[in-house]
Amino acid sequence: MADPIEFTKSPAEVLRVDPGFSLASVDPGSTPGYPGAKADGKALLAAQDDRLAELQEKLFAEGKFGSNKRLLLILQAMDTAGKGGAVSHVVGAMDPQGVHLTAFKAPTEEEKAHDFLWRIEKQVPAAGMVGVFDRSHYEDVLIHRVHGWADEKELERRYAAINDFESRLVAEGTTIVKVMLNISKDEQKRRLLARLDDPSKHWKYSQGDLVERAFWDDYMKAYSVAFEKTSTGTAPWYVVPANKKWYARIAVQELLLEALRGMSLEWPKADFDVAAERAAVAKS
Amino acid sequence: MADPIEFTKSPAEVLRVDPGFSLASVDPGSTPGYPGAKADGKALLAAQDDRLAELQEKLFAEGKFGSNKRLLLILQAMDTAGKGGAVSHVVGAMDPQGVHLTAFKAPTEEEKAHDFLWRIEKQVPAAGMVGVFDRSHYEDVLIHRVHGWADEKELERRYAAINDFESRLVAEGTTIVKVMLNISKDEQKRRLLARLDDPSKHWKYSQGDLVERAFWDDYMKAYSVAFEKTSTGTAPWYVVPANKKWYARIAVQELLLEALRGMSLEWPKADFDVAAERAAVAKS
Repeated sequence: MADPIEFTKSPAEVLRVDPGFSLASVDPGSTPGYPGAKADGKALLAAQDDRLAELQEKLFAEGKFGSNKRLLLILQAMDTAGKGGAVSHVVGAMDPQGVHLTAFKAPTEEEKAHDFLWRIEKQVPAAGMVGVFDRSHYEDVLIHRVHGWADEKELERRYAAINDFESRLVAEGTTIVKVMLNISKDEQKRRLLARLDDPSKHWKYSQGDLVERAFWDDYMKAYSVAFEKTSTGTAPWYVVPANKKWYARIAVQELLLEALRGMSLEWPKADFDVAAERAAVAKS
Repeated sequence: MADPIEFTKSPAEVLRVDPGFSLASVDPGSTPGYPGAKADGKALLAAQDDRLAELQEKLFAEGKFGSNKRLLLILQAMDTAGKGGAVSHVVGAMDPQGVHLTAFKAPTEEEKAHDFLWRIEKQVPAAGMVGVFDRSHYEDVLIHRVHGWADEKELERRYAAINDFESRLVAEGTTIVKVMLNISKDEQKRRLLARLDDPSKHWKYSQGDLVERAFWDDYMKAYSVAFEKTSTGTAPWYVVPANKKWYARIAVQELLLEALRGMSLEWPKADFDVAAERAAVAKS
């Protein structure tokens, strides 16, 4: 089989939110950095599974031998944008043993009685682990901004708190990959209708989705402000066009691969005498 | 592509530990119920991924709509028997969102200050979830029996406590699948040597493995007693021959498939007016 078509430009470069970034200027139907079509993308996704799994295993192995490296993928998006699919199709290639996934829902009463980062801190990845946040502390500056659940002063406090929090994670060895899966409003309509047309997908449909959809423009504004305030050098945001699910998946996969490659992972050296152990096993 | 060769006898029947079972009479290199060879088994494993993922999604969906059903896979085995591989190759096909995996290690000081089931209870699957225990409360009647860390009276208390505990889980809606991956002592030697011969696997080698290996016969005895005491009608044990990794994986996969099929899973019915929602989305 021919080698699959690869990215010609790094998603970490073409999708990164840098100063001057404008969310409105991103085409959710585009495929930045990738010259192939859907079938090529699917072939690439499958071909890279093993590379991703090997790097993740190295990360896990290092964690067992005293390394403090860890990886945290933060996924944010409007409903139906494909967070779940990205998790199952990209993260699913990794050994479940090395993945700590948290889907953050509406906070409990106990969580609400604490600072918004309290429940987040409990779920950050341990050494050697890949943490995945399906929604995150960013809800506290997105839905909260949209519905006015926090005032401007409190929102400012939260942006600053998020930056301090993420800086600390990075300083203690975490590589953070923050991804917004970016679908268009029309694409969301298509996906909601598709859910309603398939009885096996009715359980995924929530009437609340339609309520939030009515605030689309406010959400885009809230995302834009969040990007401006929290896309930092140590923990930048990536906006991944997601109308094409196959593209969103290979882009997230490539972002994870690049992050892991940047961690200089090595198989831990044996801390025992290999030849002596070999002899002991052989005669056991 | 031709359909892959399937099991001709149900693993749930041919591998179940019933009264009169003898661990010594199981050939760890055998492939009970499966007439195919390695390549057939690998094809079956891949072909069944989607079936497993769909059933797991139904379980998850039911859990969101008030069902109390849940699935718990308990994996026990000697070192190198392939628990990790079973998790990544079988459970890995499921949506990570619906899987709660716990690898039980040596208990912490806090855990040791509680009953042995205290830390277990905290990790049982929630409604709709698939729980996976990589090691479990059975360590407390296996390694503890082998090394005499618990006396006979305490061990008897634990067998009874385990049966009560598992009965309660079953009564509250949990289907429990208890699997011992059964390798031979010779096969373990081969696998330990293979780890030592591959620098990328040195991190998986522990000198403790060799220590426990010296107690092989005692472990087999401890497993036999555990089977006798805790292979119940509601939560039977399955002993899966595991010298052939490919067989162990399809056997575990099939046990999970059969368990899920036995749960009469259905897609939840919409609790809203589909046509009305469709019209509302269309004009949104």
